[in-house]
Amino acid sequence: MGTFGEATALTIRRADQYEAVLDAQWSVGTRLHGGYLLAVLGRAACESSAGAGHPHVTAVSGVFVEPPEPGPADVRVTTLRVGRSVAQVRADLVQQGRTRVEALITLGLLDDSEPWWSDVEPLEIPPREECFLASTDPPGADFSVPLMDVVEQHVDPGHLAFAFGAPSRRGLISTWQRLADGTDWDPLSLLVALDPVPPASYDLGMPGWVPTIQLSAYIRRLPAPGPVRVRLRAWDVGGDRMDETADVWDDKGRLVARSTQLAAVRVPSDGQLSQQPGNGRTM
Amino acid sequence: MGTFGEATALTIRRADQYEAVLDAQWSVGTRLHGGYLLAVLGRAACESSAGAGHPHVTAVSGVFVEPPEPGPADVRVTTLRVGRSVAQVRADLVQQGRTRVEALITLGLLDDSEPWWSDVEPLEIPPREECFLASTDPPGADFSVPLMDVVEQHVDPGHLAFAFGAPSRRGLISTWQRLADGTDWDPLSLLVALDPVPPASYDLGMPGWVPTIQLSAYIRRLPAPGPVRVRLRAWDVGGDRMDETADVWDDKGRLVARSTQLAAVRVPSDGQLSQQPGNGRTM
Repeated sequence: MGTFGEATALTIRRADQYEAVLDAQWSVGTRLHGGYLLAVLGRAACESSAGAGHPHVTAVSGVFVEPPEPGPADVRVTTLRVGRSVAQVRADLVQQGRTRVEALITLGLLDDSEPWWSDVEPLEIPPREECFLASTDPPGADFSVPLMDVVEQHVDPGHLAFAFGAPSRRGLISTWQRLADGTDWDPLSLLVALDPVPPASYDLGMPGWVPTIQLSAYIRRLPAPGPVRVRLRAWDVGGDRMDETADVWDDKGRLVARSTQLAAVRVPSDGQLSQQPGNGRTM
Repeated sequence: MGTFGEATALTIRRADQYEAVLDAQWSVGTRLHGGYLLAVLGRAACESSAGAGHPHVTAVSGVFVEPPEPGPADVRVTTLRVGRSVAQVRADLVQQGRTRVEALITLGLLDDSEPWWSDVEPLEIPPREECFLASTDPPGADFSVPLMDVVEQHVDPGHLAFAFGAPSRRGLISTWQRLADGTDWDPLSLLVALDPVPPASYDLGMPGWVPTIQLSAYIRRLPAPGPVRVRLRAWDVGGDRMDETADVWDDKGRLVARSTQLAAVRVPSDGQLSQQPGNGRTM
């Protein structure tokens, strides 16, 4: 099983053009994980000419155009601007000549300083050893989650009721996460943590596929070594769309990264909050 | 004074390429307003070949590369994918051959249905007639805000303490907004409402320029006629960056649009929450 570094490694082809080999291990069902794909684009941005002096991704907005397949992919970086404190690029992941994922990325220099001011509600989650280790083969599911072999995820047991057919309807799933390869989180791998599975809709009694349409991530500071804690929350569900946010705290309790995504969901046709329980295809 | 429609009007040059004439009226100080610029890009996306059958912007992620000048600008739309329920494009605003703003845009079809589920805290704001009409010439400011002549904005008086040198430190500014031209809000003009001025940092005692780096917006449903109510909130300030969100409710009290932006701020060098009052360069 490859490391995160190996799964996102790039071979340079010419200036600002790379080849990646997308690793099926970083998949949910048969689809490559969105956060993993953004991490590949983020690495290309950092390695590009624009990344000199701006070593970290700080903001990434990606649009998911068409699911890429595991295997070789072209990654192209187009510099929009290189400034003193930031550089801004567009990065494309291309297969068979078609853009599969495109992202606008701001690069900069992060540090590990404390926030100057914060109004983000702190995360409450039991100690990791009291949480539930997510499996690659969720009970009752008809698909597997290979990602869970490379991202070790422990779920707050208070947020697991959906897995037993009784979702809490709060749209809230908190987890501990660490990379199974033993490496510490960094700004690129945090993009994986910022796109958690399962989606928050599972806790609303809406099992099923939730493809991301657009995802925007901010990496706010360098994470301390150790596991991160992640809070995934749904906010508004309607019109076959859900927006959900993820916040990530490092082992020192500092908020290090935030994301929001708009995803497609299938809202039950009765037009109101469904009362049937989730089907347990969740963990 | 032109209408929103006139200020964002496009002349087609060739397929998916347009000319806009950027209107200095939609400025804060000498800088064109970010939400206005995204609306110009959004209109181009809707008018492009990808917009056929997908009439509304639903997700817009923009990166602000270099401030454009008032006057003519080229707007180019590149189709990434046209699907059954969504179309995805990239749109660029170009002057003197340089990209000034670039956005990834998802188009779709919105309706005015109620949310199926929501966990967004409702907005509390006094009636419009009890709120404070924002002026183009904020008291004590050394710049003007021409935007306030085209976006009529009434500020919650409970969130105005910063204007008198005593910011509440909550990072919260709620407003009523309507277009001065009398037209109702639509998905494009909501992009203007989603990028409120002044920034939430003013309520943290941090006056001064807050340029947006990246902004992501979701239009969730069609707004009812009438004014909208907007809540602007800061979340995390540190490392010379602030993230802030805006939520917009229509006249029927439905959440219609949401945004998040990462912006550059100057964090006081003492490394902690400054106690000196704001300087009142705010409204």
